[in-house]
Amino acid sequence: MTRADGRQAHDLREIKIERGFTIHAEGSVLVSFGNTKVLCNASFTPGVPRFKKDSGEGWVTAEYSMLPRATHDRSEREAVKGKIGGRTHEISRLIGRSLRAVIDVKQLGENTIVLDCDVLQADGGTRTAAITGAFVALADAVAWAKKNGYIAKSAKPLIDTVSAVSVGIIDGVAMTDLAYVEDVRADTDMNVVVTGRGLFVEVQGTAEAEPFDRDELNRLLELALQANLELSKMQREALGEDLDLR
Amino acid sequence: MTRADGRQAHDLREIKIERGFTIHAEGSVLVSFGNTKVLCNASFTPGVPRFKKDSGEGWVTAEYSMLPRATHDRSEREAVKGKIGGRTHEISRLIGRSLRAVIDVKQLGENTIVLDCDVLQADGGTRTAAITGAFVALADAVAWAKKNGYIAKSAKPLIDTVSAVSVGIIDGVAMTDLAYVEDVRADTDMNVVVTGRGLFVEVQGTAEAEPFDRDELNRLLELALQANLELSKMQREALGEDLDLR
Amino acid sequence: MTRADGRQAHDLREIKIERGFTIHAEGSVLVSFGNTKVLCNASFTPGVPRFKKDSGEGWVTAEYSMLPRATHDRSEREAVKGKIGGRTHEISRLIGRSLRAVIDVKQLGENTIVLDCDVLQADGGTRTAAITGAFVALADAVAWAKKNGYIAKSAKPLIDTVSAVSVGIIDGVAMTDLAYVEDVRADTDMNVVVTGRGLFVEVQGTAEAEPFDRDELNRLLELALQANLELSKMQREALGEDLDLR
Amino acid sequence: MTRADGRQAHDLREIKIERGFTIHAEGSVLVSFGNTKVLCNASFTPGVPRFKKDSGEGWVTAEYSMLPRATHDRSEREAVKGKIGGRTHEISRLIGRSLRAVIDVKQLGENTIVLDCDVLQADGGTRTAAITGAFVALADAVAWAKKNGYIAKSAKPLIDTVSAVSVGIIDGVAMTDLAYVEDVRADTDMNVVVTGRGLFVEVQGTAEAEPFDRDELNRLLELALQANLELSKMQREALGEDLDLR
Amino acid sequence: MTRADGRQAHDLREIKIERGFTIHAEGSVLVSFGNTKVLCNASFTPGVPRFKKDSGEGWVTAEYSMLPRATHDRSEREAVKGKIGGRTHEISRLIGRSLRAVIDVKQLGENTIVLDCDVLQADGGTRTAAITGAFVALADAVAWAKKNGYIAKSAKPLIDTVSAVSVGIIDGVAMTDLAYVEDVRADTDMNVVVTGRGLFVEVQGTAEAEPFDRDELNRLLELALQANLELSKMQREALGEDLDLR
Amino acid sequence: MTRADGRQAHDLREIKIERGFTIHAEGSVLVSFGNTKVLCNASFTPGVPRFKKDSGEGWVTAEYSMLPRATHDRSEREAVKGKIGGRTHEISRLIGRSLRAVIDVKQLGENTIVLDCDVLQADGGTRTAAITGAFVALADAVAWAKKNGYIAKSAKPLIDTVSAVSVGIIDGVAMTDLAYVEDVRADTDMNVVVTGRGLFVEVQGTAEAEPFDRDELNRLLELALQANLELSKMQREALGEDLDLR
Repeated sequence: MTRADGRQAHDLREIKIERGFTIHAEGSVLVSFGNTKVLCNASFTPGVPRFKKDSGEGWVTAEYSMLPRATHDRSEREAVKGKIGGRTHEISRLIGRSLRAVIDVKQLGENTIVLDCDVLQADGGTRTAAITGAFVALADAVAWAKKNGYIAKSAKPLIDTVSAVSVGIIDGVAMTDLAYVEDVRADTDMNVVVTGRGLFVEVQGTAEAEPFDRDELNRLLELALQANLELSKMQREALGEDLDLR
Repeated sequence: MTRADGRQAHDLREIKIERGFTIHAEGSVLVSFGNTKVLCNASFTPGVPRFKKDSGEGWVTAEYSMLPRATHDRSEREAVKGKIGGRTHEISRLIGRSLRAVIDVKQLGENTIVLDCDVLQADGGTRTAAITGAFVALADAVAWAKKNGYIAKSAKPLIDTVSAVSVGIIDGVAMTDLAYVEDVRADTDMNVVVTGRGLFVEVQGTAEAEPFDRDELNRLLELALQANLELSKMQREALGEDLDLR
Repeated sequence: MTRADGRQAHDLREIKIERGFTIHAEGSVLVSFGNTKVLCNASFTPGVPRFKKDSGEGWVTAEYSMLPRATHDRSEREAVKGKIGGRTHEISRLIGRSLRAVIDVKQLGENTIVLDCDVLQADGGTRTAAITGAFVALADAVAWAKKNGYIAKSAKPLIDTVSAVSVGIIDGVAMTDLAYVEDVRADTDMNVVVTGRGLFVEVQGTAEAEPFDRDELNRLLELALQANLELSKMQREALGEDLDLR
Repeated sequence: MTRADGRQAHDLREIKIERGFTIHAEGSVLVSFGNTKVLCNASFTPGVPRFKKDSGEGWVTAEYSMLPRATHDRSEREAVKGKIGGRTHEISRLIGRSLRAVIDVKQLGENTIVLDCDVLQADGGTRTAAITGAFVALADAVAWAKKNGYIAKSAKPLIDTVSAVSVGIIDGVAMTDLAYVEDVRADTDMNVVVTGRGLFVEVQGTAEAEPFDRDELNRLLELALQANLELSKMQREALGEDLDLR
Repeated sequence: MTRADGRQAHDLREIKIERGFTIHAEGSVLVSFGNTKVLCNASFTPGVPRFKKDSGEGWVTAEYSMLPRATHDRSEREAVKGKIGGRTHEISRLIGRSLRAVIDVKQLGENTIVLDCDVLQADGGTRTAAITGAFVALADAVAWAKKNGYIAKSAKPLIDTVSAVSVGIIDGVAMTDLAYVEDVRADTDMNVVVTGRGLFVEVQGTAEAEPFDRDELNRLLELALQANLELSKMQREALGEDLDLR
Repeated sequence: MTRADGRQAHDLREIKIERGFTIHAEGSVLVSFGNTKVLCNASFTPGVPRFKKDSGEGWVTAEYSMLPRATHDRSEREAVKGKIGGRTHEISRLIGRSLRAVIDVKQLGENTIVLDCDVLQADGGTRTAAITGAFVALADAVAWAKKNGYIAKSAKPLIDTVSAVSVGIIDGVAMTDLAYVEDVRADTDMNVVVTGRGLFVEVQGTAEAEPFDRDELNRLLELALQANLELSKMQREALGEDLDLR
């Protein structure tokens, strides 16, 4: 069985990782998972928020947002509504946790890196693209900080790569990296965040239509591990020698 | 190895499900998982929100909140801050999704049930206690609606029971239903929502300290399934003949 | 003339004062005036807000709120609306002023006690129950602070007890402690806050339907003084030896 | 004993009621209680808010605010803070209730009158000046509505006049209409809203420093009734033939 | 051609500048451009906002607002809406920039002057009246600060006067100081802020109906310069010897 | 005299107009003025806001925003702050007015077009780039609406092109299209919005450091007219046959 866009069940969409997309940010990556395009900007600033003061540790956090017309229909700006919605909060927190899983905050020193993940165009899987792109921007910001003397040359804050993919079951078939039209049809939808070494950072599975059993869960995890290995490879290729893992 | 409170790794804390805790709500349950106490009130109202109008389907949603002094230190009220935090949003959405997984909205007709889950006292696992208690309040509200003629006597909106438990790995040992002191020490923390028939509704695993591997994930899922079977049994006992599953 | 619930005009409803209702707060009281149930948690913290810094004086304040389904119909959460309503503000301020009338802030030292009064179930008189219960929680928090060395053993911050009751005129008859069904029928509604020594702290009378004359006012004040003496007695009984008045 | 400004204990400050202060509002009154100056604009609009639809009754409500520099020190605008404070809410509600006590909403028909009371200059007693001035603006708006055919010529929505005064106890002496320097020194502070016939609409007494006894309360009420009779007389003089009471 | 109110095209409305309108502010001016009346209060406070700390320079800023019934129809309060509208923001910023153009912040020292411009009655040209009145209030506040020793007697923070006027094209004729009925008919509307020496501070021209050409622009600028010279003269007369320009 | 980037005083930076930048919007343009890059998405929806209902006329409006790291230092998201700043409001309104000056809303019919202008990268002149790009996106949305039958084939809603440029005086020299480093040094800064026929839509000049005289104003207007003619030519080239002016 092939999919609408000709992919096999286990295929990722075309993945592009474009570094240096904007000029001001210490790390700036435009990541594409097919038609899903997310701009991930990493901002490095010396110093940490109050709850981390004098801890000797740094802080990494993330903010996710969609441009109003990233989607098929225009959605109102959260700034205009005056409050951030639950989905936005949830995804921002997920991205932050995922990146913190591969950062050694002691090695980072008392510095802060904020990852802004703004979806320019959405076609399913925006949070997984954001995590995957944000890691590359984070690596660039760490490299920038070393080069500019904010972090010791010998420090190695990055423990591993981290990436994410969505997997789901459609008509009984487990599939990788769902596009929007697939996502709305899926019975089960799972976002899986995995390190370059193949360890789980987050597993978030949701029964959209029907609860799922242990076997289905296993097939989804299998696909997710495999796809994340590919994503990790692409991240390494994109960063080349600029990636300095512990 | 036993735990601080004398439990075995696979033991739930003492679970209490007290129906009819307040007088106004159509379903009102005080659920306790040890020292964690959550008041779950179900409010039934005829009619549905605009996005469900004329769909012939009902709507079930949930709002979670903590009293300011439910926790060891007082936290500021979200109403005073003027906005709802990301954690609150995330949990409210999780409870709503979990309940909708076992409700046939067509059988519910164009009626709305809102579950208010207010944590009176917190000691870890507030979201899993909330889901477990909210299901019982939901069942009471459905029964009330049948008795009062809002839903046909023959309708069976409830597909199955649903409950939730947290599981985690502490010092390499997988454990069930973490109390707060355990939660803060856990390397991995997973909330698992399961139906009475043993199917997964939500699997949310997070690596707090160290990423986890497939084997650890399997052990956690095993514990979670076993504990949820026990919780489902307690829900059935608490509801007795008032539970009318499809 | 007897009332719907069999009471005489000057009778209070059944009053219950349950100390130690939750485990974390320094004072935690569930107070019941009939079906009205308010959870009053007192949080003690060393230090004072900025406007009291270096004054040598402490601070006592209160926040009142209703759970969404404390009432017959569900009301929207103020946190969801993003702002606190006028009624909530008004009652929070009233509770704070009432308690400050019996606290010697110099004896309290530069410490803060916040009283959270959350209505679990409402049936009229929630603000008067809140004041009455909050005083007991406050006394417990003061005792806790002495025991734990935050306040000198010899200090006596509590000047007197304080309690409150609603009184009103229904069909020309002055009545004590109105239940909700009585409250909506009352021509005049008055909340009276009184110290254990029988002095007024607050008198808030409102003509709901018809303006009232001096004579009616006098009869209401009479009932209120009498009821508050009873409430003060119950507070003393509930606290027993733990009450340490100046 | 005379006061700082030469008044006797029972004297009001100089009261001025200037009608037609601005040109757009249906009723526009600048009221002065000494240096306290409040602009009271009444806006008449056909139609009522949703909760009054098809009731055959009208609605009267009020909004109180202070200009940032009405006071000795500048206070931040509530619009800039993004939320209305408790004190503002409390006073707005008080003004609205006071006016509704002398309006027959059936005679008003399904029309709304909003009273905007903006304090241009504050020197104590802003809420009592606001009520006193707002009544005159209300009467002008009712007269306007009759003249312009929105209310039947024969209708008599105004039942009575209503005015308000603050009274307080300073160094044991009960005094009328406290200026700011007196207000901060008062042990007890009471705002009393009274109709032209001498009936109470609101009695709000607060022990600022020391709780007060029945005798003090009586003396304050005496002063308040006497002062309100004077204020009612001034309102009648200001309105002359334009006042059309039932 | 004469206008509805009998003015010639180049005539200002009747301008009044009333100093000392309220008692608390360091500068308090009620300015009238015909029926447009704006209360401009200047608040002087030692110290500067954080972004000016240790700069040796002072800060001047402004906040503009309309009373709800300043206009023909009542508009909702921005404090009630919980946010400030775009028009309010825009005008507040314009007033601030205009005043800062004639203040030497070094001479002001590390002090702040806030100008509150509250429109009591609107009939077109509220922002230009506000700028014109605010300058006079600013001059009074500077004089107050010198007299009270907050600024050295020898300092001369005021560089020049500043005033503003609206000009517009109606039916092909360029006109000065548009009243509201003229404003809504104008094809082009321009607000021009000019110093006493006849230099431009702000030129804001907007094509309301039809884009305008270079010639029309020139005629409007001509009228605006002429009117501002008159306004500057009135400001000097109003301030008399209290104006101390560099 | 040449500039830092080698331009002559009257030169625009390199201008790029890239249509079809995203796939969902009816018009989607990435416009670049040198390093300033703004994504302008036009969203067409049938129907109009309430204040335009049954007017037979359409509505065009705009929202401007900056990504947090569009600038050299990261700025906090307005959605996180919960309110939109004055600058954002001001620019959104300017873009909306500029576009409405060249749209015949009657020809548009009761349809709405919203222009979202999100700055991806800022280097001075973001508002002028936004207006210039938004016009092209607007033209694309109008063409889309004709093609899809929402507007009659014969209708010609577009009256003319519209573009904008910033001009300023630096060290006495008038210059076109200021980059950020120039903008901060400019004594006078002017944004000028001009139609394809060379008529003014908006003229907004601000004295940043020194007030300016009539001669300087004239030189700035000259440069602005010339630059806008070039921009209009580029807009026409970018749109080619898809531009259908009246």
